[in-house]
Amino acid sequence: MIRKSAMLFAVTAGAGLTLLAGAAPAGAEEGMWMPRQANEIGAAMRADGLELDPSQLRLDAAPLNAIASLGGCSAAFLSPEGLVATNHHCVLGSIQYNSREGQDYLTNGFLAKDLAGEVPAAPGSRIYVIEDLRDVTAAMLKGVTSRLDGLARYERLDANRKALIAACEKQPNRRCDVRPYYGGASYFLQQQLEIQDVRLVYAPAQGIGTFGGETDNWMWPRHTGDFGFYRAYVAPDGSARAFAADNVPYRPKNWLKIASEGVKEGDFVMVAGFPGTTNRLRTAEEVRFNFAEYEPLWQRLLSDYATQIDRATAGDREAQIRYASILQGAENYEKKLAGDIAGADAIGLDARKQAEEQAYRDWVAADPARQARYGAAIAALDAVVAENNAAALKGLRSALLNRAQLLSSARTLYRWAKEREKPDAARESGFQDRDRAQVAARLTQVERRFLPAIDRQLFKAALAEYRQLDPADRDAAFEAALETIGFDRLYADTKLADTATRVGLLDRPAAELEASADPFMRLAVALYPGDMAGERADKERSGRTQAARSVYMQGLLAYRAAMNQPVYPDANGSLRLTWGKVTGRTRDGEIWTPFTTAEGLLAKHTGKGEFDAPDAAVAAIRAKDYGRYASPELGTLPVDFLSTVDITNGNSGSSTLNARGEFVGLAFDGTLDGVISDWAYAAERNRTIHVDSRFMLWTMDKVDGAHRLLREMGVPAGE
Amino acid sequence: MIRKSAMLFAVTAGAGLTLLAGAAPAGAEEGMWMPRQANEIGAAMRADGLELDPSQLRLDAAPLNAIASLGGCSAAFLSPEGLVATNHHCVLGSIQYNSREGQDYLTNGFLAKDLAGEVPAAPGSRIYVIEDLRDVTAAMLKGVTSRLDGLARYERLDANRKALIAACEKQPNRRCDVRPYYGGASYFLQQQLEIQDVRLVYAPAQGIGTFGGETDNWMWPRHTGDFGFYRAYVAPDGSARAFAADNVPYRPKNWLKIASEGVKEGDFVMVAGFPGTTNRLRTAEEVRFNFAEYEPLWQRLLSDYATQIDRATAGDREAQIRYASILQGAENYEKKLAGDIAGADAIGLDARKQAEEQAYRDWVAADPARQARYGAAIAALDAVVAENNAAALKGLRSALLNRAQLLSSARTLYRWAKEREKPDAARESGFQDRDRAQVAARLTQVERRFLPAIDRQLFKAALAEYRQLDPADRDAAFEAALETIGFDRLYADTKLADTATRVGLLDRPAAELEASADPFMRLAVALYPGDMAGERADKERSGRTQAARSVYMQGLLAYRAAMNQPVYPDANGSLRLTWGKVTGRTRDGEIWTPFTTAEGLLAKHTGKGEFDAPDAAVAAIRAKDYGRYASPELGTLPVDFLSTVDITNGNSGSSTLNARGEFVGLAFDGTLDGVISDWAYAAERNRTIHVDSRFMLWTMDKVDGAHRLLREMGVPAGE
Repeated sequence: MIRKSAMLFAVTAGAGLTLLAGAAPAGAEEGMWMPRQANEIGAAMRADGLELDPSQLRLDAAPLNAIASLGGCSAAFLSPEGLVATNHHCVLGSIQYNSREGQDYLTNGFLAKDLAGEVPAAPGSRIYVIEDLRDVTAAMLKGVTSRLDGLARYERLDANRKALIAACEKQPNRRCDVRPYYGGASYFLQQQLEIQDVRLVYAPAQGIGTFGGETDNWMWPRHTGDFGFYRAYVAPDGSARAFAADNVPYRPKNWLKIASEGVKEGDFVMVAGFPGTTNRLRTAEEVRFNFAEYEPLWQRLLSDYATQIDRATAGDREAQIRYASILQGAENYEKKLAGDIAGADAIGLDARKQAEEQAYRDWVAADPARQARYGAAIAALDAVVAENNAAALKGLRSALLNRAQLLSSARTLYRWAKEREKPDAARESGFQDRDRAQVAARLTQVERRFLPAIDRQLFKAALAEYRQLDPADRDAAFEAALETIGFDRLYADTKLADTATRVGLLDRPAAELEASADPFMRLAVALYPGDMAGERADKERSGRTQAARSVYMQGLLAYRAAMNQPVYPDANGSLRLTWGKVTGRTRDGEIWTPFTTAEGLLAKHTGKGEFDAPDAAVAAIRAKDYGRYASPELGTLPVDFLSTVDITNGNSGSSTLNARGEFVGLAFDGTLDGVISDWAYAAERNRTIHVDSRFMLWTMDKVDGAHRLLREMGVPAGE
Repeated sequence: MIRKSAMLFAVTAGAGLTLLAGAAPAGAEEGMWMPRQANEIGAAMRADGLELDPSQLRLDAAPLNAIASLGGCSAAFLSPEGLVATNHHCVLGSIQYNSREGQDYLTNGFLAKDLAGEVPAAPGSRIYVIEDLRDVTAAMLKGVTSRLDGLARYERLDANRKALIAACEKQPNRRCDVRPYYGGASYFLQQQLEIQDVRLVYAPAQGIGTFGGETDNWMWPRHTGDFGFYRAYVAPDGSARAFAADNVPYRPKNWLKIASEGVKEGDFVMVAGFPGTTNRLRTAEEVRFNFAEYEPLWQRLLSDYATQIDRATAGDREAQIRYASILQGAENYEKKLAGDIAGADAIGLDARKQAEEQAYRDWVAADPARQARYGAAIAALDAVVAENNAAALKGLRSALLNRAQLLSSARTLYRWAKEREKPDAARESGFQDRDRAQVAARLTQVERRFLPAIDRQLFKAALAEYRQLDPADRDAAFEAALETIGFDRLYADTKLADTATRVGLLDRPAAELEASADPFMRLAVALYPGDMAGERADKERSGRTQAARSVYMQGLLAYRAAMNQPVYPDANGSLRLTWGKVTGRTRDGEIWTPFTTAEGLLAKHTGKGEFDAPDAAVAAIRAKDYGRYASPELGTLPVDFLSTVDITNGNSGSSTLNARGEFVGLAFDGTLDGVISDWAYAAERNRTIHVDSRFMLWTMDKVDGAHRLLREMGVPAGE
């Protein structure tokens, strides 16, 4: 599953629209519900087995106040000492950041013996503790009239958003965001405590954490122990601050209790986390374009990229470690796109969306009042969607230039310098003072994921793809500059590969950078005017899109309400709740049973490549040394399990809770033919894969001897 | 599943050993039984559901007298007019032979409108109709004393074998062979009518016949319609002869009746066919070597070969058609080897064989009489096995030179010339008059599977691998000749790429070939002395191996008899019978249900690449136009099914029979983690995949309109 930071930005029509009261959910499994909807879905949850009082499912009470975000991944506190559990693939960057030749934590795993042995996570790592999620619709729509279109509309909403965030972030160490719901019918501000000192505590060997590798990714049966642990550190006075030797473990308001019994088939489970993006409310034409044109091209570009990295790093362990995270990201998302495309075909998404869209449009057309209210917006949306689609295809190829990490760094540096010429509030998101630490971290992190010779090969390949664009869609200034410099001089002459030099250019005046002879900086400066023009065009189109879409969405919501169809907002990176059951699945010629076991892991274990479990794990399985972690129903140690909960990217690392809100595992993946649920929920095929808490605890106890952590979590350790 | 011609050649000790009476089979599923053992297994077959009288399971009665062989594949007559059903992958060479640019039968399928439209199969294609299988142990052992070892022993057995075959083949149009059973404890002569005029009648499009391609190969769930039809033609007087315009369809003694009802879960099924090779009676050291050294190298060489072909033919449809069969063979076998290696590991084969071997050796050592009888032979076998292993590794790389099809042809031609200098009976097997038609066919067939530029690239890669051998293990004369000629002149100067020239050199005197300036002929001549020396060494080692192994095997058989363990001979390419049940399988995290369906095929169908079913099939499935072919139990059209029957390579194309001996499908594959059964039967994982007769008939009726053939098979056609 991919980590993908989700920052949907949509706007609403002038007319404020209150949150639609949720109708009864269509099925127990479908829906990524806002916690505030718990009262609406509570009865259904209770009927499905929830033992807690649904009113307890709120941000300021257990268990939800133990939930955390890593920004792109979800997580939860498992101890009073700030111990945080998440997925192995969510801490992979930190494992890799701390690995080097002869200290291969990726292969061998990492376990800090004591607090002093816990090492800083990759630069930029954060733990966000959610504190509030409040309705700010009125403040966001201040001054946004129905006549405000294009760039002006975009800028007004952006200004309102920034003002709300700035006010919120006046509180120290808070990270705030404002996100649109129901296509901008409402806005909520999410306030989080930002913990900046994040340390890697424990990650099993990759023979557990990524067991099965790309072969098993998105697949069932699965035997991956996709878990790892961070710890949140704060100043001795309890305030968040950057790494300092005398920082102490953070004491969260709450932490999840480890369930004394694991789950069994049919059990109620729920997941609270931060799903990134779903597109279940897109128009039929947007869906058609996505699956016929956009994703196929993207998939091909990612597939080629993975091949290029493979070739460039072949036989070089150091290079492989440096590019492991980038490669895994590319392969993972390529597979996801392939599954998306196949899934859309399999469920007949195109025809389904066309029919739904037509029904909605017919409903509008059938009534003059509805036609008057929504008709023009629907036509306007159709027109601007065509423009957006063309821009999206161009954008895919243009974005390839950033695969050159030094060019990407230079563009960031120059953009930073240009934005710094403006007052903070007027700067672009991502380039405000509040973003500085993250920008510096990103510039620093390059050193661990970069080798000049590899970057060069990847850039060369990226340029070849970029040149597939029509000349009119390419950046003439950039091409002229590259021609003048000569590709072969880029890596010979640049100083940006040196981290001190690179990071040292942050905060330098734009004029100084413009005078730089560094070839990548010259390219970045050449690209800037084109980038700005492109951004303005995007914003202008975005303003028009959003003006049209917001009215289109009002109509759609009215239509759905008339049809008595349940409505929950598309995922947007904010906290959501979903529940379901531990359940397998029937397919043609096979049945997926809901649990895998240690014996199945052993059957896949070859001792090589992606199927190479640690010796200690193999020996303990052979000896059936499962301690108290075996499932009474299965008669052996469970590894992973399936459920029907409705998650997507961003939910990676979410704790899985039982009917009493206790920890029973971690969600870490979906299955390939279920990923289409991002576009249209398909109940018969949607399954989430969880690592079973019993496998986690067994690995900690019997394989890695992480008894210190077990004790901290309140689990009697088997020392 | 791979076609692999199986010609095991083992010899026996002087002491004749009668066939061990079969003990009760260990499980209904295990065992590839000789038809003459039907009386021994009959009760178990009846208990499992056989409705026929077991005494009817003999060569001269229905249904077994409808079984045929293609040499490497199995088949059966399905009509009184000589119509033969087998697997698509068994007729693939003939589809390809008849395809060319603009006439792409591989992609589109082939259906002859009438008899006149049936086209000659690939050169060398044969249909063998089994007539007799008789015990010739006494004649084989004539003059083979216990003192005869090494080359002399080998040559005596070879002479006896040739004499038996020659006597048998005095009858016109008969093909006879003599094979060892139980490691040479017995010998049987198999007599077959050799039908030389074989024509391609019908093959579905590859979107049916190879649906799922390499991705699904060896996998379940499976949706491949792996079937095709040949027809046997003979002279108007009924005698077999080569293609002639006035040949007429052959009228077999019998043909299989199409079952009016298909099978359902739990049904009895049996398969009669020609399994090629199993190694269930090998020594522990032979098993260790195979899985630790031999197969891993072989797998790597095949994997590289497939990559080389892919690269060399990329973007060239004509080249892809020419190399399709070679590529499929390489990929298929590579996957099989990978499965073999993983399976050996998964079932702990090494430890299991070591334990079995030790138990046998302990049993021998525990008794002085047994020690006196078998002890020396066991030690001798250990010693020669070590020599054999070293030679096998060298042989893998040396064989790569024959990947150059022109070099392989030149070696065949020169060897043919040298053998022709001897009287027919003294010639090496494969180079006697009886072999001439096959040799000519092989030389001709090159033209359809060859392009000089591709051959050149593949030869270059093969040479690089060959040069990984120690200089002492390479052929100095060959290397010197290649150096003199220069690699770059090989393809520029050769005339052997011309089929008339190439085939025209057959039967030319050796001296004429030795004087040839053709670079490939020069290489072949240079290789000859080394080849002969190697062959003599192989025979000498083979004689010693066999003298030791035959005694070792006598001991092993005595031991197994003492343990009351059932014994059936290892597969050796002769007719065998196996039965089982239509049954799924339970694995960790999943259950394989025994049938796949048309809806599952549609779910996999993407319209691209390996998952591209014909439009007519897709439309008929969408319309659920299943006619009378739907399964009442499934409520839809079955595609493939699983059973527990015990088959291996060579069984491809075997008809699957129900309890009444009626046709219900074709066996076409195993599953990847079950292929280890070639080395040790693993009941829990051994499953055979069959294409369901109902899917075959539906495809013929609803997709391809093959109503002529359906009527001929006695199936009411849906025109």
